Amino acid sequence: MGFPENFSLKSIELNEKRVIRDAIHDYIHVDHLIIWRLINSQEMQRLRRIKQLGGTYQVFQSAEHSRFVHSLGVYQVVRRMLETECLSNALNDYDKLCVMCAGLLHDIGHGPFSHSFEGVFGGNHEDMTVKMILEDSEVHHILSSFYEKLPQDVASIIQHTHPHHILIQMVSSQLDADRMDYLLRDSYMSGTTYGHFDMSRILRTMRIRDGKIVYKESGVQAIENYILARYHMYWQVYYHPTARSYEHLLQCIFQRVKDLYREGYDFQTQLDYLIPMLENRVQVQDFVDLDEAVVLYYFKEFRHEKDFILSDLASRFLNRHLFKYMQLKNLDDLKRIKDIAKDKGYHPDYYIVSDNQKQIPYLHYGESGELSEIEILDSEGSLSPLPMKSEIVSAILNSKRFKSDQKVFFPKEIKDELSIF
Amino acid sequence: MGFPENFSLKSIELNEKRVIRDAIHDYIHVDHLIIWRLINSQEMQRLRRIKQLGGTYQVFQSAEHSRFVHSLGVYQVVRRMLETECLSNALNDYDKLCVMCAGLLHDIGHGPFSHSFEGVFGGNHEDMTVKMILEDSEVHHILSSFYEKLPQDVASIIQHTHPHHILIQMVSSQLDADRMDYLLRDSYMSGTTYGHFDMSRILRTMRIRDGKIVYKESGVQAIENYILARYHMYWQVYYHPTARSYEHLLQCIFQRVKDLYREGYDFQTQLDYLIPMLENRVQVQDFVDLDEAVVLYYFKEFRHEKDFILSDLASRFLNRHLFKYMQLKNLDDLKRIKDIAKDKGYHPDYYIVSDNQKQIPYLHYGESGELSEIEILDSEGSLSPLPMKSEIVSAILNSKRFKSDQKVFFPKEIKDELSIF
Amino acid sequence: MGFPENFSLKSIELNEKRVIRDAIHDYIHVDHLIIWRLINSQEMQRLRRIKQLGGTYQVFQSAEHSRFVHSLGVYQVVRRMLETECLSNALNDYDKLCVMCAGLLHDIGHGPFSHSFEGVFGGNHEDMTVKMILEDSEVHHILSSFYEKLPQDVASIIQHTHPHHILIQMVSSQLDADRMDYLLRDSYMSGTTYGHFDMSRILRTMRIRDGKIVYKESGVQAIENYILARYHMYWQVYYHPTARSYEHLLQCIFQRVKDLYREGYDFQTQLDYLIPMLENRVQVQDFVDLDEAVVLYYFKEFRHEKDFILSDLASRFLNRHLFKYMQLKNLDDLKRIKDIAKDKGYHPDYYIVSDNQKQIPYLHYGESGELSEIEILDSEGSLSPLPMKSEIVSAILNSKRFKSDQKVFFPKEIKDELSIF
Amino acid sequence: MGFPENFSLKSIELNEKRVIRDAIHDYIHVDHLIIWRLINSQEMQRLRRIKQLGGTYQVFQSAEHSRFVHSLGVYQVVRRMLETECLSNALNDYDKLCVMCAGLLHDIGHGPFSHSFEGVFGGNHEDMTVKMILEDSEVHHILSSFYEKLPQDVASIIQHTHPHHILIQMVSSQLDADRMDYLLRDSYMSGTTYGHFDMSRILRTMRIRDGKIVYKESGVQAIENYILARYHMYWQVYYHPTARSYEHLLQCIFQRVKDLYREGYDFQTQLDYLIPMLENRVQVQDFVDLDEAVVLYYFKEFRHEKDFILSDLASRFLNRHLFKYMQLKNLDDLKRIKDIAKDKGYHPDYYIVSDNQKQIPYLHYGESGELSEIEILDSEGSLSPLPMKSEIVSAILNSKRFKSDQKVFFPKEIKDELSIF
Repeated sequence: MGFPENFSLKSIELNEKRVIRDAIHDYIHVDHLIIWRLINSQEMQRLRRIKQLGGTYQVFQSAEHSRFVHSLGVYQVVRRMLETECLSNALNDYDKLCVMCAGLLHDIGHGPFSHSFEGVFGGNHEDMTVKMILEDSEVHHILSSFYEKLPQDVASIIQHTHPHHILIQMVSSQLDADRMDYLLRDSYMSGTTYGHFDMSRILRTMRIRDGKIVYKESGVQAIENYILARYHMYWQVYYHPTARSYEHLLQCIFQRVKDLYREGYDFQTQLDYLIPMLENRVQVQDFVDLDEAVVLYYFKEFRHEKDFILSDLASRFLNRHLFKYMQLKNLDDLKRIKDIAKDKGYHPDYYIVSDNQKQIPYLHYGESGELSEIEILDSEGSLSPLPMKSEIVSAILNSKRFKSDQKVFFPKEIKDELSIF
Repeated sequence: MGFPENFSLKSIELNEKRVIRDAIHDYIHVDHLIIWRLINSQEMQRLRRIKQLGGTYQVFQSAEHSRFVHSLGVYQVVRRMLETECLSNALNDYDKLCVMCAGLLHDIGHGPFSHSFEGVFGGNHEDMTVKMILEDSEVHHILSSFYEKLPQDVASIIQHTHPHHILIQMVSSQLDADRMDYLLRDSYMSGTTYGHFDMSRILRTMRIRDGKIVYKESGVQAIENYILARYHMYWQVYYHPTARSYEHLLQCIFQRVKDLYREGYDFQTQLDYLIPMLENRVQVQDFVDLDEAVVLYYFKEFRHEKDFILSDLASRFLNRHLFKYMQLKNLDDLKRIKDIAKDKGYHPDYYIVSDNQKQIPYLHYGESGELSEIEILDSEGSLSPLPMKSEIVSAILNSKRFKSDQKVFFPKEIKDELSIF
Repeated sequence: MGFPENFSLKSIELNEKRVIRDAIHDYIHVDHLIIWRLINSQEMQRLRRIKQLGGTYQVFQSAEHSRFVHSLGVYQVVRRMLETECLSNALNDYDKLCVMCAGLLHDIGHGPFSHSFEGVFGGNHEDMTVKMILEDSEVHHILSSFYEKLPQDVASIIQHTHPHHILIQMVSSQLDADRMDYLLRDSYMSGTTYGHFDMSRILRTMRIRDGKIVYKESGVQAIENYILARYHMYWQVYYHPTARSYEHLLQCIFQRVKDLYREGYDFQTQLDYLIPMLENRVQVQDFVDLDEAVVLYYFKEFRHEKDFILSDLASRFLNRHLFKYMQLKNLDDLKRIKDIAKDKGYHPDYYIVSDNQKQIPYLHYGESGELSEIEILDSEGSLSPLPMKSEIVSAILNSKRFKSDQKVFFPKEIKDELSIF
Repeated sequence: MGFPENFSLKSIELNEKRVIRDAIHDYIHVDHLIIWRLINSQEMQRLRRIKQLGGTYQVFQSAEHSRFVHSLGVYQVVRRMLETECLSNALNDYDKLCVMCAGLLHDIGHGPFSHSFEGVFGGNHEDMTVKMILEDSEVHHILSSFYEKLPQDVASIIQHTHPHHILIQMVSSQLDADRMDYLLRDSYMSGTTYGHFDMSRILRTMRIRDGKIVYKESGVQAIENYILARYHMYWQVYYHPTARSYEHLLQCIFQRVKDLYREGYDFQTQLDYLIPMLENRVQVQDFVDLDEAVVLYYFKEFRHEKDFILSDLASRFLNRHLFKYMQLKNLDDLKRIKDIAKDKGYHPDYYIVSDNQKQIPYLHYGESGELSEIEILDSEGSLSPLPMKSEIVSAILNSKRFKSDQKVFFPKEIKDELSIF
């Protein structure tokens, strides 16, 4: 038989199509049973219990949304991309199904309070997402019962190894469904205006050339707006020092737990759900059980542990006694600050944290920077990289200075002692 | 000394006023240290871990906001009311402080998954709010350290016993800060258009007559819109059958826990945080420890209990296998449905639930209906109840029929057996 | 040949589809050359010089939009209706083309300051629209050069004589593209919240039964919201007394011109563009030349006429010295007010106007009420009229009282004399 | 007597304050009779008949708003600035009144289709605004009857000669009430997202230092967003080639009228309202009579002039047969294009136009560039120019390339002949 070549999405359409009301996209349309089943899988439902913005909602209080609604949004942006003339023609129905699934599932491997959690326990949410799709999970069974190669094909989009480059671009690239949804959603939820950009126009100027998604020159200003939106959201929202303070406190708690466990400390708290992480033998099913409800429950319990550092940090977290912060001028200062903390009885490994945020608005995507630039198609049919066509982006790239921000975070109690810096 | 008569809000203003970005009100302004300290109290921070809409976000997925941001919003609407010329003149500064505190704190007594929780464990969130303000809590200490009678004065607004009727109207009446914030917020977050109304105009038409807040006739249409917004939000959002299904499932779980505990069942799960509720000896501090993170953790644990009913219900909840529902035509049917469930092995006390939602868009406020109507001030200075001035409201009141909706909820597994009804 | 039965819209698609940015619908899509040519015809371009809201923008100052953008909007709503599954299947491509043209052209017969103009010079904008489509006009030539019967088929939709009832319903009925666009647009432009309703949901619940458009029961609340939006926009915006005052002043000017012309008065102003109206021999081409720029130019000129009434009224209009107004309690008062005006030197025929606005939110559509009700399809497949399914609409219909508002308008100069009423 | 030093705005407050509903600012508040009288003056009412965006609404069809509503908006932004703590304290009540008047009146000197009109007839709308305030006009009388020096004080703000620098900055500077209103309004009306920025935050970060308005560092990103909004609105909206085409056509018509008049051509059209402009002896009162209704009426009449060029251009304008355009590579091409036009019978002076739009997003304000930069106040109290504090603005300034766009416009009829370029 001709599957997947002759597969037709029409053949698996729901009789009664479903819609989910959404604040960003108005409606999220579910036309196919497999998508509906994936949405209702335990791996997807777990994302309801993981916040999209980690600590940021300590600053932008109304931004309390979960990774679950973001994932629905990414799926919906992918769906809208597929409705454009160029992508509708460029892809066969099986590829369309694969990329809708990849958009929906791309975040299932996130841990609770994702960045702090990964910072301590290692691992990487993309690898975990792939593992969950390929190994024993409800999501895996839904996909493989539909077509045995489907888990692998969906996973390879997320891994950037799928032969069809367009599918990868749709889900993760400089200008992808993931970023489009999160900028729009995070800005709507936080009540800022920084994340607005004209998604409709960007989608309307998509074209396919040389097997890649490129953009017509008439879309350059919408793309500039998108890049600036990203830049401003980073500084105004994601890298807000109070949000960083919250992440650091989380990370100190996780680190203390890890260190105590390694030292054989006798926890009063039943750590069942965390033990696979602590023993570095986590399986998909263990991971599915880990969500922010569990972690918050543990934090409540930690308040009663005899280890002072752990109980103190947990109380600070639950009662929002976040670390204070100040600009860090040089690394010598950091050493002196740690000494002061120690003198005052605060273990510097868990009470003094420094970071250095640097945000380059464009070009270096991801850690490895392997992804190519946004390319622009001009009226004569030639392609150029975006900075050649955008004064704004070019100006930014040629600037010597990029905004960076080095800060040190410390307990409020030693604020006075640090006023000399 | 002249306190509270000569108390001036100016005297306690923060040097550096604070603002909190908010999706609904743009900015929430915090001008006084006592408000900032209340916001950061553990009782208020706990509300971050309690969702505003209980089960409704199972239907309106993007409505994931907490009671914490709603409480900030109510405070901000109270603040805006106080800026109107009429209220600014009618109240002294101490009363203004009291009502700002009452607006902020009015929801601290809500339990996790509030309605289902109260349904099983009894108690009432207003009573608990009052208890928390008057008894040993962080909030109580912040208030009483400011002025010893402040806790009582704030509580009496929430209890509807404060001598100054206006303060009560501002926080709980047919047209109060609480409702205004939640209609706007719930509709924004859920992405529906139903909850929109023109709050600015309503505030602009407020006047004081006979010691009460009344509204100029030119505000009638804005108020009609508000009442219809409420009506439509109820039917479209709050009473959506899927949301009710979710609430019923919660209530069945709580009920099973309560019944098992009473029977002396040996729980594997450490129920420490719930035991005060189960033994009906809950203190303020016990209550503060109860939030949705704890309850969700318990549900995760319940999956492994040997009691089949409890483990089954908990799994249904976490994996979103909600009860199905159908119209219930009469109570005889209900009995027959219960019998069928029993035959199929589903204990009807925990698997069959019926309810009857009735929404009357106006007039009967709260359970006891003690609150008076919205009154309208015409250009000649006379007052009339709203229905005399509003065709729409009057028409609704004179209608014989009010929309009601009687449904029965049951496990999906017996759907076929019930198709005869 | 098989035209129009085998006509395919695909065959006339533009190579490069056009989009027009629009504040209400985001983009208005033009896919076919004939639509683009109609938009650029002189009859359509003339609508740029005729305001949608007549005098209303004297009250809602920012609502300065023209009938041209509204017409584009109606076309776009028709286009969206045609994209719904039910209408997409129910109509052939030729009918689709006809109804898109009818939506776009439905307002071309409006005169400058339409209602006042018609009030004095007679005629009816629907008849003129039909005449312009059928007789010698650019629009007629574009349509007939495409297909000779097209003008007739488009006109018959506007005349309500087309055999296909659905097409008529789409363009003019209780719930049509015309009303949907104007409620959304007028409310957006005026900055009120009254006209919001959930058009997406209404479109999603459309179905075809017995050759008519009906609505699924799940759409009832969205339709209630639409009907209330209409009701509130009428009272809050369209029937605002200042807007009525402006319309009356306009009508008095037109009436004075008409009476003077009939009496043989020697106008200084060159009235060329108005003469066909005054002599009741207006042809399509004369009408096309009449727009609000011409009328405003004449008003400027009238300021210098020797006839005092005409020059005075024109100055009042241009300098916004509108008539004042008060409630009119009975018709005897009207007579006495006219006598007072006369005594003070104001000709009552041109300086005293009374009106009685009555708005019934539903059921009586148009003057003749020939149109049927909105019908609701329930889950068992039966149809009921909307009031059977809507408490709100039913309550309104059964109410004895409907809001009406009888006012008299008069020059500011005699305000004191009228204070006795 | 103490006027103006001891003048109090409170003393002239309206008993019944007025509000005007507005799409951008929700409500525009009128608290003082003098403002209400200015709004109702003939000079302000005339602005209702002059569109804000000139030809731009040929592209952004829904952007049909007038300079009148924009002027109300500027007044309202000035009013909001005055409510900020820093400006409220820095200015006395008389200065506050002056700057509110200046904001409201700053545009009254605009001619119909302002830029094309000035291009041909000379003059400058700022000079005319000042003239109208100082000389015999209704506005002048309202101001001077209030206080004889008021017209001069208001005018000197608009002329940039007022001793109080802050007042000038509020109304015209890199970041003023004028630009803030028009970016927000034009973007709302045109339905683009480009003009959004966070005005509330910018206002909140205003401070006064050294007698100037400066901005706290925490406002830098909001200001960056504002500058980019300006940049994008210019390219996406204001400099759109179709809008420029429309402006050029207007300018050619005005030029032809001027040349014909100079040559003694015998106009059929009664040009009364234009003659003062043509004879370069325009008085304030002549100017007040000139609006877009008059100009459009003349264009209608011009269609019947025997001069072919004039009648042809006027018809093109009214029926929207705009000039086509293409990139112009060098000035030699321009000469050759003019020759071709001439050969084909199109007088190159009226049928071939070239322009070169260059938009520098920051720094060079106004023609003379006399205005200083936006200054930023850091946490240590030092001031720096914006580019020192903004990576984005700095990068743009240091870029060698600025976007420029040289185009030539020509009649559609010779498009084929020009395809060789």
